[in-house]
Amino acid sequence: MHKHRFTKTDSRNRRKQAMELGIIGLGKMGGNMAQRLHDGGHKIVGFDFSADALKRLNDAGSKGVTSLEDLVKSLTGRRAIWIMVPAGDPVDETIAKLKPFMNKGDIFIDGGNSNYKDSQRRHKELKAEGFDFVDVGTSGGVWGLKEGYSMMIGGDDEPVQYLTPIFETLAPAKDKGWGHTGPAGAGHFVKMVHNGIEYGMMQAYAEGFSIFKAKEELKLDLPQIAEIWRYGSVVRSWLLDLTAEALEKNPTLEGLEAYVADSGEGRWTVFEAIDLNVSAPVITESLIRRIRSREQNNFTDRMIAIQRNAFGGHAVKKD
Amino acid sequence: MHKHRFTKTDSRNRRKQAMELGIIGLGKMGGNMAQRLHDGGHKIVGFDFSADALKRLNDAGSKGVTSLEDLVKSLTGRRAIWIMVPAGDPVDETIAKLKPFMNKGDIFIDGGNSNYKDSQRRHKELKAEGFDFVDVGTSGGVWGLKEGYSMMIGGDDEPVQYLTPIFETLAPAKDKGWGHTGPAGAGHFVKMVHNGIEYGMMQAYAEGFSIFKAKEELKLDLPQIAEIWRYGSVVRSWLLDLTAEALEKNPTLEGLEAYVADSGEGRWTVFEAIDLNVSAPVITESLIRRIRSREQNNFTDRMIAIQRNAFGGHAVKKD
Amino acid sequence: MHKHRFTKTDSRNRRKQAMELGIIGLGKMGGNMAQRLHDGGHKIVGFDFSADALKRLNDAGSKGVTSLEDLVKSLTGRRAIWIMVPAGDPVDETIAKLKPFMNKGDIFIDGGNSNYKDSQRRHKELKAEGFDFVDVGTSGGVWGLKEGYSMMIGGDDEPVQYLTPIFETLAPAKDKGWGHTGPAGAGHFVKMVHNGIEYGMMQAYAEGFSIFKAKEELKLDLPQIAEIWRYGSVVRSWLLDLTAEALEKNPTLEGLEAYVADSGEGRWTVFEAIDLNVSAPVITESLIRRIRSREQNNFTDRMIAIQRNAFGGHAVKKD
Amino acid sequence: MHKHRFTKTDSRNRRKQAMELGIIGLGKMGGNMAQRLHDGGHKIVGFDFSADALKRLNDAGSKGVTSLEDLVKSLTGRRAIWIMVPAGDPVDETIAKLKPFMNKGDIFIDGGNSNYKDSQRRHKELKAEGFDFVDVGTSGGVWGLKEGYSMMIGGDDEPVQYLTPIFETLAPAKDKGWGHTGPAGAGHFVKMVHNGIEYGMMQAYAEGFSIFKAKEELKLDLPQIAEIWRYGSVVRSWLLDLTAEALEKNPTLEGLEAYVADSGEGRWTVFEAIDLNVSAPVITESLIRRIRSREQNNFTDRMIAIQRNAFGGHAVKKD
Repeated sequence: MHKHRFTKTDSRNRRKQAMELGIIGLGKMGGNMAQRLHDGGHKIVGFDFSADALKRLNDAGSKGVTSLEDLVKSLTGRRAIWIMVPAGDPVDETIAKLKPFMNKGDIFIDGGNSNYKDSQRRHKELKAEGFDFVDVGTSGGVWGLKEGYSMMIGGDDEPVQYLTPIFETLAPAKDKGWGHTGPAGAGHFVKMVHNGIEYGMMQAYAEGFSIFKAKEELKLDLPQIAEIWRYGSVVRSWLLDLTAEALEKNPTLEGLEAYVADSGEGRWTVFEAIDLNVSAPVITESLIRRIRSREQNNFTDRMIAIQRNAFGGHAVKKD
Repeated sequence: MHKHRFTKTDSRNRRKQAMELGIIGLGKMGGNMAQRLHDGGHKIVGFDFSADALKRLNDAGSKGVTSLEDLVKSLTGRRAIWIMVPAGDPVDETIAKLKPFMNKGDIFIDGGNSNYKDSQRRHKELKAEGFDFVDVGTSGGVWGLKEGYSMMIGGDDEPVQYLTPIFETLAPAKDKGWGHTGPAGAGHFVKMVHNGIEYGMMQAYAEGFSIFKAKEELKLDLPQIAEIWRYGSVVRSWLLDLTAEALEKNPTLEGLEAYVADSGEGRWTVFEAIDLNVSAPVITESLIRRIRSREQNNFTDRMIAIQRNAFGGHAVKKD
Repeated sequence: MHKHRFTKTDSRNRRKQAMELGIIGLGKMGGNMAQRLHDGGHKIVGFDFSADALKRLNDAGSKGVTSLEDLVKSLTGRRAIWIMVPAGDPVDETIAKLKPFMNKGDIFIDGGNSNYKDSQRRHKELKAEGFDFVDVGTSGGVWGLKEGYSMMIGGDDEPVQYLTPIFETLAPAKDKGWGHTGPAGAGHFVKMVHNGIEYGMMQAYAEGFSIFKAKEELKLDLPQIAEIWRYGSVVRSWLLDLTAEALEKNPTLEGLEAYVADSGEGRWTVFEAIDLNVSAPVITESLIRRIRSREQNNFTDRMIAIQRNAFGGHAVKKD
Repeated sequence: MHKHRFTKTDSRNRRKQAMELGIIGLGKMGGNMAQRLHDGGHKIVGFDFSADALKRLNDAGSKGVTSLEDLVKSLTGRRAIWIMVPAGDPVDETIAKLKPFMNKGDIFIDGGNSNYKDSQRRHKELKAEGFDFVDVGTSGGVWGLKEGYSMMIGGDDEPVQYLTPIFETLAPAKDKGWGHTGPAGAGHFVKMVHNGIEYGMMQAYAEGFSIFKAKEELKLDLPQIAEIWRYGSVVRSWLLDLTAEALEKNPTLEGLEAYVADSGEGRWTVFEAIDLNVSAPVITESLIRRIRSREQNNFTDRMIAIQRNAFGGHAVKKD
């Protein structure tokens, strides 16, 4: 059975060990992770379609290659390849292109934002062909390079343990911010819900500050309030730290459009909650509000306006 | 104790009886009610600041007067005055102006959309001075003239019974669509919640039709669907009848702004639910969406956009 | 291209015509539909696993058979089989068992609550084998026998037109309550959203009456209010008619458990809204509340209790 | 005009200065604050009805008194009295009892969870009588003694500046976690919204962990996940730190009832948002869920069950 929890004893007994790792996708996340691993003493070989990304990697002392074949062949011993590409087909395509060059026992790591069901499927398919597959939900954004990444890891015990030196280097501290959360898919499942919670927290803060802004008579100073709350308050958090900094730079949020994108993980969380019969109104409402932010000339509102007009003769606004 | 329920026996024993009624406020609602009462054989005296409104009343065979004093003096016997003015101060001001001309036992009727707490206060104050006060929550909108008004009535038994011929004429049928729902305030309380439910129903329909509109590949015909549902479906309703008609005239809702006003009753319902510790998410959410429809350049959404940018480097849209 | 809208002209020109129809599944819905069709002059052959259901069918003058083969063979000319079985595998299994006995051009009708994506798939598969497939979203519940069924129909023009006499008999009136809403799947799609709206309306009414119940000081009479609203009010509807009747029988709802089941269509509506990027908070919230009604010893609430205790020393309630 | 923002320069120029302070209410919050101030070199005189609370104060080196008169008379110079009693009438009563012993210019400080409108009224009333009034929204809970309190302060500039040494000692650091947020009421207003945000954050975490618990097949380890997220993740926060600790002690939350109390501030935030026409669905929904946690044998759910039964013959569960 896999071991869920990382204990101090394990980590103390394990020598810090330099490893080799291939990384595919050297964007905002992958590029920073490559650098953090290189700085931590690991040998990194990276692939990206962008010549600039490869140059940055080379300049930082790692090795950039221009084909997946070269990537695999640049690694010795049991290969571990960290795939950091957009969720969905790109992951399947990358795996398919890598497989011809990989040996039995080599490890595919999906560190992106894949749907956990895809990770369960990929694990099963690769396992049947003799490969290992580990799914890593990775949080920390652009700050990970400096502060370390939080990683939730799903997969079989053996490959997860084998990769421990990599996780210890990427994490904020050797023993902190990462863990093997369960079987295949459990990494991406936990990361998915992490993002759902993130939606809820962001919406809660945003609503609060909107109330402040609307209370014009008190002439509240939004950056000041965010700054006060960073110390000693119940709502202090890393998100609040960043919010305080952002508000300091742009207290009125001028120039920004009221438009919020969403990656897939919030909606997957909502689907999952419903499938599991868990009532999760706040995460759901946070998603709905993001969707709402993208609706132009909202049809629902116009339907209500026309209904009011129909029964009550209430005036409607014309475009 | 007041008698809550209107029974058939009561109505059968009661002769239809012509009454006199003063009406203050001859707009969309008051004007139509005056006409329905006149057509039903009652003697109506009406007051409005608008000369047009008075002309319409006179043309229809009732008597329009240009002062509150004339209004009161035009009525014989025990006076009953139906006040149909905007909620809040106008009601108090109208009562204050009327009082000098009224006798003990005369009846003030508030048929507008007053907050039930105001009605409870007014009842108490007027009672202490020897007057009667009856609060009538009135539903039916511009269709009431033809189809009759639904009335929820609060107040003491005696004046409510005294006014029965008026209610029987205004109602869709002698025995239907009206009732004495409880003590002072109970009329406006029930009407308040009525409007809260109305918000929820309208939002439910509007969301459904928005989904139809968004499902472009099926090329659904919105007026057709509304029309189908009017017969035999579980969601058939009077609101749907009106919606079908409105969609028939303007299937794409072109020219309408996505802007929904709200009168006070929806928000009072939400406040009341919270005060009573009743969880009412759908009525509440319907109100929130109306508020949302009026927010320009939504600050909450911009706060979330800037937070996403801060931790993840996600692009924000510029105005 | 298929013709979306049913027009009066069409119906006037079309002679009422007796047809033959096989019905599979003679439960609450299928059994009543068989009877309404029989009463309307059509020849019905029915199949059900329940001997009782077959006996009822025979007693009512139609023919009950004990195998699908017999069902098909009892029909002459171009066969049309109305399948009224639980959504999902049972529909596929029924179709698979029927196919060996069916001829090219015969029509499968799915009148149950199938997911519209399944209907699109079945249409495509059956079409490829030379059969026709029509999906009918059917509303009206146990009242359909008497009042007629509302039907939203998806599929190709030709078979839908062929089945017109059946739809005209099942519907509340020849021209009302049914329509061809679009291509394959459009019937079940429209019915799915119909149910989502139904959730919202029910929740809106239920919240309103809960507020009445909680306002103890006014001693409101819930059945009275429902009855008043049935005539002239903006919230009048068929659901309200039924609610008034149910409250009349059991004004305190005693003996009922606070437990609400949901069939799949509400959650499919929510998934669809999210997939289409339509913000639908009220339909969604209505689903969430149903889910909530089934959660025992709610974990979310306990999590919040323990968080409050952790930061504020607030007491928690022990089981 | 008052100066909103606390600047580093101000604090550097201001000598740390020992002050005298009276504190009324020596419970969980007041008692700890008295101790933190005493430890910081201030002279504290405290009043409480509880002999135990007074003893603890005396044992810790401060002075406990048994009457408000003694409290005031134990202070020299310009008096400042920190009132830490339940919101509402107790604050008014305490102020009324203190006033006879206070001099013009003395300062009343309300450090409790008062409604900001009460604080605005009290400021106005006391100002008219020559007193000063400062409202302090205080966050930090039972951890404030050790970590310091976050304080949002409303009132006139002069008394707020006069009290600076008190705030600097109570705060997490001299310059951090406190600020003068605006005129009278601005302290309690900001604290009110703080608590609304807190509701939303707690609900977001709680929903996420409920999804984990429901995903039984993955056998997720809730305390492990909370612990992982504390480092490097986007959702890291002080609330999460406490949650991780609480889950570590009781991973299944056994023995806790699913019952969540709410103090007034969440509902005031919701009222305020609506009054200001700010759509705040997540804070609102968080409040609604707390209300829902306290509803037994939910009437809304039973209403829906009976509606489903009425139209569809769907079975209802009996108690």
